[in-house]
Amino acid sequence: MSVPGTLVLLRHGQSTANAQGRFTGWGDVPLTAHGEKQAAAAAQLLAEDGLVPDVVHTSVLRRSIRTADILLEEMDRSWIPVHRTWRLNERQYGALTGRAKREVRREAGAAQYQAWRRSLTATPGPLDGDALACLRADPRYAALRGGGLPAVESLADMIARVAPYWADILAGQLHSGRRVLVVAHGNALRVLIAVLDRLTEQEVEDLNIPTGTPLRYDFDCELRPVVRGGGYLDPKSARVAAAAVAAEGEA
Amino acid sequence: MSVPGTLVLLRHGQSTANAQGRFTGWGDVPLTAHGEKQAAAAAQLLAEDGLVPDVVHTSVLRRSIRTADILLEEMDRSWIPVHRTWRLNERQYGALTGRAKREVRREAGAAQYQAWRRSLTATPGPLDGDALACLRADPRYAALRGGGLPAVESLADMIARVAPYWADILAGQLHSGRRVLVVAHGNALRVLIAVLDRLTEQEVEDLNIPTGTPLRYDFDCELRPVVRGGGYLDPKSARVAAAAVAAEGEA
Repeated sequence: MSVPGTLVLLRHGQSTANAQGRFTGWGDVPLTAHGEKQAAAAAQLLAEDGLVPDVVHTSVLRRSIRTADILLEEMDRSWIPVHRTWRLNERQYGALTGRAKREVRREAGAAQYQAWRRSLTATPGPLDGDALACLRADPRYAALRGGGLPAVESLADMIARVAPYWADILAGQLHSGRRVLVVAHGNALRVLIAVLDRLTEQEVEDLNIPTGTPLRYDFDCELRPVVRGGGYLDPKSARVAAAAVAAEGEA
Repeated sequence: MSVPGTLVLLRHGQSTANAQGRFTGWGDVPLTAHGEKQAAAAAQLLAEDGLVPDVVHTSVLRRSIRTADILLEEMDRSWIPVHRTWRLNERQYGALTGRAKREVRREAGAAQYQAWRRSLTATPGPLDGDALACLRADPRYAALRGGGLPAVESLADMIARVAPYWADILAGQLHSGRRVLVVAHGNALRVLIAVLDRLTEQEVEDLNIPTGTPLRYDFDCELRPVVRGGGYLDPKSARVAAAAVAAEGEA
């Protein structure tokens, strides 16, 4: 049996909403200049570790698409296959979409705020009717108009849409020995890692994914991670950045 | 039976080699600033004609990839599927690759020069051993190492690699009603049009494709073009630009 390929997970570079401390969810905001630099820096880290990808997966949101495009251009790999799927989208944050995290924390209290952000099952209010109508009119979600379009998602809801992409698409590519890069979002990657590492509910709550920092997974022949939690290519920066994510919204 | 989709053909924007008047072939040169503007202008033309693509095909060369990326970003369609294939590459120009057209015309004479550029069967000398070794080492052509990697191509050779992509991929997407955009190269598009319009050898010789100018094809239910030769979205500019292509290399 051949050795499985390597998986690299990368959260998109800083977006304008990250810079403003807002919940973004399915809002389609661009990268900041700093975010574009992070994408190029991630390419450097991958190149130094010999992790030139064979295939890339992104969400259908421009912050992940653009991060991947910059990274691939930097690695002279613009020609490799890139798959874009709503299944790797950020969490649908419902009524919190676009709101300042600090303001939400003040209004709802620290405990409720943290539950909405971190817990597996807490669910904010849904998108209002106008916002949902806009989403239904967006051609990129045309295939979901039959009823699959979420007005809000818990992390548990996300597992139901991310896990099939792992099982049906990513696992097969890794089994065939390919080097797979996934450029996605904080919560999409938390959920994917929860599936890979079979995280407990508490571990999911405690997991924070920094922007722009590649996380590498190697696998045994049954596609179990060789090292639980994988390994950041730049562990020191990743630790600092993850702590900053954990503290978002605090005064 | 449902109505087939619309096909739009687009030659990449001006490349650095176009600006220098050189044969490029499989050389992987970037767009000029003017070429990037052409890509954005093509997006405007498509939008005005309601031709927002559902799916895009490019070669594995960066001038077509980048043209498509700019165009899609301009149309807010960065999330649609993009397929990249060597089958849509520019012609492999062999020993002419990188050479100045004017110089080749002076050395070989106007008749030979025009035959190499225009005729269906004329074939320049092959890539030399070093250049071919470089190409064999290029990971984007790894699947062709078994023997399919051309050291030079005539237009007839190109038909053998482009026609299957039409029959196996593009035709199926058009039959299912999709709006298909192909962003490729002067000779790849000449060959594709030769297949679509069943051009005579003389018609192939006389066909010139300007950079950055979208060409629209509509089809009957048997996928025959409704109008032979299709229709440029900006016919006046296309005529002028095609005449300039025809005159390339002249003093």
